Amino acid sequence: MPRLENIAQLATCRAEGAQGDIHAIADAALVWEGETIRWVGPRPALPAEYAGSERFDAGGGLVIPGLVDCHTHLAFGGWRADEFEQRILGRSYQEIAAAGGGIARTMRLTREASEPELVERASGFLREMLSLGVTTVECKSGYGLDREHELRLLRVYRTLAGIQTVRIVPTFLGAHVVPPEFRDDRAGYLSLLIDDLIPCIARERLAAFCDVFVERSAFTVDEARRLLRAAQAAGLGAKLHADQLSQGGGAELAAEVGAVSADHLECASEAGISAMARADVVAVSLPLASLYLGQPPVPARRWIEAGVAVAVATDFNPGSAPSYHLPFALTLACTLQRMTPAEALKGATIIAAQALGLAGRIGSLEPGKAADFVLLDAPDVTHWIYHFRPNACRSVVVGGALVRSV
Amino acid sequence: MPRLENIAQLATCRAEGAQGDIHAIADAALVWEGETIRWVGPRPALPAEYAGSERFDAGGGLVIPGLVDCHTHLAFGGWRADEFEQRILGRSYQEIAAAGGGIARTMRLTREASEPELVERASGFLREMLSLGVTTVECKSGYGLDREHELRLLRVYRTLAGIQTVRIVPTFLGAHVVPPEFRDDRAGYLSLLIDDLIPCIARERLAAFCDVFVERSAFTVDEARRLLRAAQAAGLGAKLHADQLSQGGGAELAAEVGAVSADHLECASEAGISAMARADVVAVSLPLASLYLGQPPVPARRWIEAGVAVAVATDFNPGSAPSYHLPFALTLACTLQRMTPAEALKGATIIAAQALGLAGRIGSLEPGKAADFVLLDAPDVTHWIYHFRPNACRSVVVGGALVRSV
Repeated sequence: MPRLENIAQLATCRAEGAQGDIHAIADAALVWEGETIRWVGPRPALPAEYAGSERFDAGGGLVIPGLVDCHTHLAFGGWRADEFEQRILGRSYQEIAAAGGGIARTMRLTREASEPELVERASGFLREMLSLGVTTVECKSGYGLDREHELRLLRVYRTLAGIQTVRIVPTFLGAHVVPPEFRDDRAGYLSLLIDDLIPCIARERLAAFCDVFVERSAFTVDEARRLLRAAQAAGLGAKLHADQLSQGGGAELAAEVGAVSADHLECASEAGISAMARADVVAVSLPLASLYLGQPPVPARRWIEAGVAVAVATDFNPGSAPSYHLPFALTLACTLQRMTPAEALKGATIIAAQALGLAGRIGSLEPGKAADFVLLDAPDVTHWIYHFRPNACRSVVVGGALVRSV
Repeated sequence: MPRLENIAQLATCRAEGAQGDIHAIADAALVWEGETIRWVGPRPALPAEYAGSERFDAGGGLVIPGLVDCHTHLAFGGWRADEFEQRILGRSYQEIAAAGGGIARTMRLTREASEPELVERASGFLREMLSLGVTTVECKSGYGLDREHELRLLRVYRTLAGIQTVRIVPTFLGAHVVPPEFRDDRAGYLSLLIDDLIPCIARERLAAFCDVFVERSAFTVDEARRLLRAAQAAGLGAKLHADQLSQGGGAELAAEVGAVSADHLECASEAGISAMARADVVAVSLPLASLYLGQPPVPARRWIEAGVAVAVATDFNPGSAPSYHLPFALTLACTLQRMTPAEALKGATIIAAQALGLAGRIGSLEPGKAADFVLLDAPDVTHWIYHFRPNACRSVVVGGALVRSV
């Protein structure tokens, strides 16, 4: 039974209390057995029964739960660097999409890629994310946008779950946009999603969640409601891309259907945020997308004060958030969204786990939970997020096994 | 005589033409001899005389000039992570300074540190910067703020120049703020700077530039003018921290005295920027400081269109910019300041070199210049800055010698 000591600060990130309360322990010890945490507390209080366990030295660093990236579009073909430059020069995301760029372009490039290519590429991203301390990643489909290629993306995620270390949570995002083939037949595409794909995905357990992009250029609130209700009836959880580019009632719908999360929310209404607070829907903030699209950052500080739990994720994708660097998103959550470092950390651990329905198993360092944790070269959480470095991560443990050490 | 080939794109960053013209060469070759570049051009045009040179393979990557960080406060004691959290919670930089935090706090911690401590710590930062592709770093004093400790900081930089690889450009910033000892005797402190320290520093060649913080809480335009004129008379170049927290005439003064650069400029007037354009003063933008202090980013796009050369630097310091990650600053220059990737790169190479008076020796890849260059894992400049990663740098060559290779 191994134990870790010489920890300057250990952030347990237990769910109770305010988002800013990470339940930190100075001079901590952590004991685990197999895949599971057995004991966490101040080192001088270590029970005698663990005194003989094998000791590992944290070198006076910071220990946090394995980071949870609860919103990514991990598997895709190609890149869209040229659109980054076009936006700087003044073209809007919507104009670029209307001219054949945006999601539809990545759809074409993703369909053209082979399944092994998609697996290898996403696997490389996961390796880099793991080296940053990310131990769980939510992965959306949504660049296939037809029967064959949506199922293929979900199979890619199933394959990845089997061949590498990061925990994978797959989400079906067939309702990303209406694909070109169905431009004149929205009803037909919705029927494909609701009557064919959702039952098939539920039967084969290819996804844990169903997501939908509620936006003028994508799906209406009524369409999203039908889709999410069908997904819930089939046993999938509900998520939404809500109020990203315009205020469209997405936050309110998330509360109405009892979604686990509503994500983006750059343009959400106060009423929508209040409804989310009452319905316990997690708000997933995506500061990289706000930054790359030149949008005003979300007022996370105010939302937290209004009683909403705010997660922070990368939104990693080749268009609006071409970076898988979750600690980068945390530094932006503090500087742009005015979250405290503790709030940001809880937003990428236990609250992100809530947004994936996994808060009983991951996201905090407590007896009985998975031994997923990260050793960082920093004296405390505030210093880690403030002193932004290429990578401050020293070691990563997933399910009790050391998977990275510098 | 070594040569590098299999280069997808080589950005020469020659000074001529628009800031957005990096004079890129596809399928390039680069030949150097000793410390100096001999030939750069399209590989098929390689002159016969170099065909027998020793060939190195760039693996189809991107080659850029060694990055130049033209504004840092590299050597300091302690950190100020708690102030980062206080600012998020609503306290201003000025309030924190008035309560004993800010520059005066780092001054105390820097004075308390030993000279070997300062050298070792700054040396660690330089090693990390080099691994990111930064081959030249401007280093300011300004945390000593008395005779003994200002000279000590400049000696630390002289030592660093001798013991490690990154090229060091030392700047005297005794006029950072008026230290507590002189709170009631501003004239006395100015006299110490002008009549004692500047002559001494010039005599011992301890600095190439003299910088001054023109700000309500620091020095007036009249004080700065006297100081910079004295420094110029002693053979030092002039730099200014101008219009950072309030509009104070710093940009205009930079033009008037013929400074090599005016830095920050978040609150600069249009008239000040126009004067800088006419006087060929480089505007050094510091997007990390704008981000960390919650200030509106500088309108770099408009300045470039107004004819000002805009450099990009980190401002690395423990208060307003606690990161030495220059590529991070470049990604922010594009997303927040609306610079194109090419403009940002030129801002951290040839234009940064201009801001250090070194454009004849470094900052671009041309025959006769120093063989300082970086191999990046990216097909082109736009992709490198858009796909933000912990570190995309593969190899670094300084003065013809390979100093880092992954």
